[in-house]
Amino acid sequence: MATPVTVHGPPLSTAVSRVLACLIEKDVPFQLIPVNMAKGEHKSPDFLKIQPFGQVPAFQDEATSLFESRAICRYICEKYPEKGNKGLYGTNPLAKASIDQWVEAEGQSFNPPSSVLVFQLAFAPRMKLKQDQSLISQNETKLEKLLGVYEKRLGESRFLAGDDFSLADLSHLPNAHYLVNAAEREELFTSKKNVERWWGEISSRDSWKKVVDMQKQST
Amino acid sequence: MATPVTVHGPPLSTAVSRVLACLIEKDVPFQLIPVNMAKGEHKSPDFLKIQPFGQVPAFQDEATSLFESRAICRYICEKYPEKGNKGLYGTNPLAKASIDQWVEAEGQSFNPPSSVLVFQLAFAPRMKLKQDQSLISQNETKLEKLLGVYEKRLGESRFLAGDDFSLADLSHLPNAHYLVNAAEREELFTSKKNVERWWGEISSRDSWKKVVDMQKQST
Repeated sequence: MATPVTVHGPPLSTAVSRVLACLIEKDVPFQLIPVNMAKGEHKSPDFLKIQPFGQVPAFQDEATSLFESRAICRYICEKYPEKGNKGLYGTNPLAKASIDQWVEAEGQSFNPPSSVLVFQLAFAPRMKLKQDQSLISQNETKLEKLLGVYEKRLGESRFLAGDDFSLADLSHLPNAHYLVNAAEREELFTSKKNVERWWGEISSRDSWKKVVDMQKQST
Repeated sequence: MATPVTVHGPPLSTAVSRVLACLIEKDVPFQLIPVNMAKGEHKSPDFLKIQPFGQVPAFQDEATSLFESRAICRYICEKYPEKGNKGLYGTNPLAKASIDQWVEAEGQSFNPPSSVLVFQLAFAPRMKLKQDQSLISQNETKLEKLLGVYEKRLGESRFLAGDDFSLADLSHLPNAHYLVNAAEREELFTSKKNVERWWGEISSRDSWKKVVDMQKQST
């Protein structure tokens, strides 16, 4: 029988790798279909049928097509409550909400400056594009300030939403990984005691190491 | 007995009004505590205890404090499934996911250009700040392109996530309201047949009219 869950997109994409980390953490088997974005495959009519914005990832589970990585992660946890890491999205409305508010903080506050920095510092040089120093500096300041709030929070609890690793932490992995390993911004994390401890702990999980292996194999 | 649900923040804030619209739609009684942002009350030590980022809204339900408007809306729907509009966040994992992906599209793709336009076109002139024409033009182009995808989607279904009004639609109301009524960008919506129909329908709901009344009373 074919695996029902399919992820379309390159593992190097931060949004794709967020979904892969969630699937591995939940122990849900899946099939990965590469999408050659350099060739514009994400803008093809067939792809637009499952992802109307022409972005990655697109996600399919039997007859269901979904887009938006954070929504896909929530769906995986709701659809497969008994599989893998059962507490990844909490087990009651309050635990879920505590996790969800930090997933939103990631999407609304951590992702915007991080993705600018990752693009400017890691991808622009490889694409031979000129870096925008003022944009880099503005977004470093934003991220530094934000991580100050994280430092305080992570002094109060082991993970963002409490004692257990959850979607809240997982959702930060893709951009944080590039900031540390491709954009030479490790210091944003290591200069803060609690953030450093947290980053060490979440980035060494087996699920994330498997995603990083998939990224390496895809290049 | 005191109302357990409390929202801290001014109704004129888009994020606060998103939560108010959800509470009214779900028929959950609440207490609104004004926060004087001009006086910096959102940065006071007491406020930071319930909203560590110093943003609005902050939300309390009995012993629970939450932040991030979209996470708060999901929580309200999960906590009070039997109250008010029962289908606002769907009733099964698949319906929920269909709604959630459009809430994410709002947060990730509609909100960024909309909030720049609302600030530049509606608030900057009142605050006697110089408008940035290049930023306005860039973000108009982004939003126009995005609403082209919405136009197609709304030609296939009455609301974003299907036949029923949901959090997906509701989440767009605060910024769309300002674009149409304060930023003179009605045409972004009225130039597209299906988007115009959708906007007419969602903005005339009683719940949203009540929020607009609260905004008017607060000025």
